Amino acid sequence: MKDTTRATFPNSRKIYVNGSLHPIRVAMREIQLSDTLDKEGRRHTNAPVTVYDTSGPYTDPAMEVDLRKGLPRLRSEWIRARGDVQELAGLSSDYGRIRHAEASMEGIRFEHYNARPLRAKGAPVSQYYYAKQGIITPEMEYVAIRENQRIEELRVPGGPHQGCAEYANIPVSHITPEFVRDELAAGRAILPANINHPESEPMIIGRNFLCKINANIGNSPTTSSIEEEVEKAVWAFRWGADTIMDLSTGANIHETREWVIRNSPVPVGTVPLYQALEKVNGDVDQLCWEIYRDTLIEQCEQGVDYFTIHAGLLWEHIPLTVKRLTGIVSRGGAIMAKWILKHHQENFLYTHFEEICDILAAYDVGVSLGDGLRPGSQADANDAGQFGELKVLGELTRIARSKYVQVIIEGPGHVPMHLVKENMELQRKYCDDAPFYTLGPLVTDIAPGYDHITSAIGGAMIAAYGTAMLCYVTQKEHLGLPDKNDVKEGVITFKLAAHAADLAKGFPGARYRDYAMSKARFEFRWKDQFSLALDSDKAMAFHDQTLPDEGYKSTHFCSMCGENFCSMRASMEVRDLAAKREKKRKEFQNSGDEIYS
Amino acid sequence: MKDTTRATFPNSRKIYVNGSLHPIRVAMREIQLSDTLDKEGRRHTNAPVTVYDTSGPYTDPAMEVDLRKGLPRLRSEWIRARGDVQELAGLSSDYGRIRHAEASMEGIRFEHYNARPLRAKGAPVSQYYYAKQGIITPEMEYVAIRENQRIEELRVPGGPHQGCAEYANIPVSHITPEFVRDELAAGRAILPANINHPESEPMIIGRNFLCKINANIGNSPTTSSIEEEVEKAVWAFRWGADTIMDLSTGANIHETREWVIRNSPVPVGTVPLYQALEKVNGDVDQLCWEIYRDTLIEQCEQGVDYFTIHAGLLWEHIPLTVKRLTGIVSRGGAIMAKWILKHHQENFLYTHFEEICDILAAYDVGVSLGDGLRPGSQADANDAGQFGELKVLGELTRIARSKYVQVIIEGPGHVPMHLVKENMELQRKYCDDAPFYTLGPLVTDIAPGYDHITSAIGGAMIAAYGTAMLCYVTQKEHLGLPDKNDVKEGVITFKLAAHAADLAKGFPGARYRDYAMSKARFEFRWKDQFSLALDSDKAMAFHDQTLPDEGYKSTHFCSMCGENFCSMRASMEVRDLAAKREKKRKEFQNSGDEIYS
Repeated sequence: MKDTTRATFPNSRKIYVNGSLHPIRVAMREIQLSDTLDKEGRRHTNAPVTVYDTSGPYTDPAMEVDLRKGLPRLRSEWIRARGDVQELAGLSSDYGRIRHAEASMEGIRFEHYNARPLRAKGAPVSQYYYAKQGIITPEMEYVAIRENQRIEELRVPGGPHQGCAEYANIPVSHITPEFVRDELAAGRAILPANINHPESEPMIIGRNFLCKINANIGNSPTTSSIEEEVEKAVWAFRWGADTIMDLSTGANIHETREWVIRNSPVPVGTVPLYQALEKVNGDVDQLCWEIYRDTLIEQCEQGVDYFTIHAGLLWEHIPLTVKRLTGIVSRGGAIMAKWILKHHQENFLYTHFEEICDILAAYDVGVSLGDGLRPGSQADANDAGQFGELKVLGELTRIARSKYVQVIIEGPGHVPMHLVKENMELQRKYCDDAPFYTLGPLVTDIAPGYDHITSAIGGAMIAAYGTAMLCYVTQKEHLGLPDKNDVKEGVITFKLAAHAADLAKGFPGARYRDYAMSKARFEFRWKDQFSLALDSDKAMAFHDQTLPDEGYKSTHFCSMCGENFCSMRASMEVRDLAAKREKKRKEFQNSGDEIYS
Repeated sequence: MKDTTRATFPNSRKIYVNGSLHPIRVAMREIQLSDTLDKEGRRHTNAPVTVYDTSGPYTDPAMEVDLRKGLPRLRSEWIRARGDVQELAGLSSDYGRIRHAEASMEGIRFEHYNARPLRAKGAPVSQYYYAKQGIITPEMEYVAIRENQRIEELRVPGGPHQGCAEYANIPVSHITPEFVRDELAAGRAILPANINHPESEPMIIGRNFLCKINANIGNSPTTSSIEEEVEKAVWAFRWGADTIMDLSTGANIHETREWVIRNSPVPVGTVPLYQALEKVNGDVDQLCWEIYRDTLIEQCEQGVDYFTIHAGLLWEHIPLTVKRLTGIVSRGGAIMAKWILKHHQENFLYTHFEEICDILAAYDVGVSLGDGLRPGSQADANDAGQFGELKVLGELTRIARSKYVQVIIEGPGHVPMHLVKENMELQRKYCDDAPFYTLGPLVTDIAPGYDHITSAIGGAMIAAYGTAMLCYVTQKEHLGLPDKNDVKEGVITFKLAAHAADLAKGFPGARYRDYAMSKARFEFRWKDQFSLALDSDKAMAFHDQTLPDEGYKSTHFCSMCGENFCSMRASMEVRDLAAKREKKRKEFQNSGDEIYS
């Protein structure tokens, strides 16, 4: 396993903000800015900008990171201190035990795997359960502090922006631990935090918080290795992935996942159905509840934080897909539809959903109710199949909540712009405000190679309406498995879409980074612009492509317009001229006053 | 001058659709598709898809193209046949004459320049004027046929989509020449068509037509040559630029423009102020109406189709910009603000606006009223300065129309998503439904290097609300002058944003390409997917990156999911299973009927 990048961000340092309810340290990134020089040569300090940081210990030079050992177990003490979990004598899943006894896995297997996983002693151990009891956990305080990004130290000229009625509207001026608890208790947010993934830094997903993004990684039978997938994962954290989903369907799924989770500072999601199907060599005939159940337990004990489960696709929906232009485009959905027809039985994920929830509640694994019938083309958007399944997801939401399992709802897909809003509205209505987690949506089908953009358009829109998390789509969508560069482009693209939505929602403090960036831009502080950019490396590389010399980092123009045609430069001259005129006018007025007096 | 790319598009041919009112041939691109093979091995034909084509004669192998001679003069006869223009004895502008007498320009100058330009004999010669007279010109019939893309031959399952109330809604099922005339006469659309640019293929800009995109080219004092700019222009046509603006501010502006116009099949816009300022060596003190006026005439006679004129920025607005975070970010706006303050006079473009219109009407040059006060940051969006200027643009719209000059209105800029709609609403209100032409807007400031995307999000939204044309923004925005690759990425990105808006508006036939693409996708016709893509080259390259062998162009999976996990493949199996079940059920029913009978 080669070393992954641990470079810090330019002019940035990792900082830790202390909790007040709990002895916690919340990681953030602080960007240092240079001073503003005025006409008279006086220096004015620009306060550093604190930003949300998903990159984990990798970007803290003071932390020791060894991929073979995994990340520090930040939450271990918090979990044990609650006194409601037991350490098991060994793995509970048949498959987990077999796999760890398998000699051929030596050298591939993660050495320090968790051989003695935790499980609830009795009562559920989910953050939802605690919230319902009125308890503020360290995790809840962590996310409250994290969401604020030290907003108390910000002074954005013009005051806080309030969002507008058409879009989601944040009801508070800053996030408190109590607000986090209330939102969790209402089911409007989830805090994915498997007790067997203590390495993760707590984060929250809900319409009244910063919009989050997920990056999919994972090998496929045609490409890539464990090493590549871990490398991609760390790369995704670096650029802003709030969660990752390991969608591996190739070789050594179990081992890949262990490597990924042990090295992941963000929650990890999976689709257990993929592995269950791999266990029966892709033969849907042999797929059954027992194998699926064992897979759930196996993954719960590895530390997966949320599972996509396609329990809402029922027998009755299948005829609705036959006339569709693109049928069923969800992998899990297509597998379950095949299973239903071949077995002539109702979806076993639906019939066993209560048992599923009982398992998940014992580890605090969230359920992400899969949209097996999401539209795969503009033509199929918002049809009877899609919304029929969504209604069932609402029914399942209520079951999951009764078991204290945290729930999010997955959404489309391919949807033209004018049909985007209806998705959000019906999801809220049917699913009692459970957080919505969408894949884009892509607002046109005709731009393969650019689907990170077609989906960022729909993604930004639906996030502004209140979608809590966006699953990224890469430029390789519909064409092939993304590589490291595609992952980065996808993450940054969705980061900017989510941020645009946060601005529209009026999220407290979200505007500050835009403010700082634009101020740096107007003052030609080029290095500060690079530091504040979502992708500092690219911004600097683009600038330097035409004006590479160090001297051009402080000039009052760039190669786009050149010196005489730089509007910002001219605009500064306009200010000086206007100020001089105003001064003259006042002098004239004063002298006039003297004459009259 | 090296040869530019003349490659045809994959599996496509240039076709020409004849007019019925006029002897015209409207250029389009027809994409040939392969057959669908069903389970029984029977072939089903997929009708070819006709798409809008901005690439001009460059992609017609039957046409001879020589950049040194310029493109064929498609409209010459149409213009002369109207009998309302005169051929001048020579150039009317002082600068034009000096420049063409200048010996040092030999070798740089375009050889076959138009030494005897046309001008109106008396009455205006604008398409707006003709429309007002009830005349349907060949240009109007051309755009009606062009907008339809042979819609009469399309059969989109599910019938035409109607758009929805929240967005612009196309009021007709297809575009007729009469509708074009009515929209032009109402001022809701413009058809830029300088009588001295007969090479251009007619196109229309208006909320009830396909959303158009503009690509900016032009050198700056720090970079690039005439050759590079012509190369960029042809490249922009190829990928979908509906108009281009030559924003050159460097050396040989006059000569660069001549090369560009003579080789441009799309309307060309400029900002005459830039050249006027270059003529006085960038010294705003020396800038005056006389030099500007001569520049207008010079460019009218070269064949520029529309001018951006910053006539709405008045003295009274300047104080409103002083407290802004980013002041004035429009180049033309900043220059005029400086001019106003230095000369202590009202904006000369405003005070001379009637004379400007008289000049423009004599050549049918459209005016694009510049938004000198567009916001340059989220913080400055929708402020008093911006909307104050917009009101003045409404006043100028009415003056221009009284002179029969075609008018469009330029818009922002940087605007958070929740403030986008207000821009469209106020523009319609103040400017009596004149077409809106916006620069994005960018929905966040923090993503330099990705501003083609931040602006495509705002662009798609505002276009869905009815903005008629989007000015592209490249990934180099805020960082440097775009190169050829940036131009292509920018054009494709805006093409997809405009198309997404056309889907939301329910533009007749817009859905068909999406339909054909998704059908090809579901049927694993990989080559057809590449042919139908906005960027065939990139789609194919991405696919081939992991599965390069020719055999993979017909396999029923790609490297993203692999064979067992391909949802589309599984979905096809679901269909077969469902069909078999249905057949069995019917057989059972029938046998039951027999028993009972």
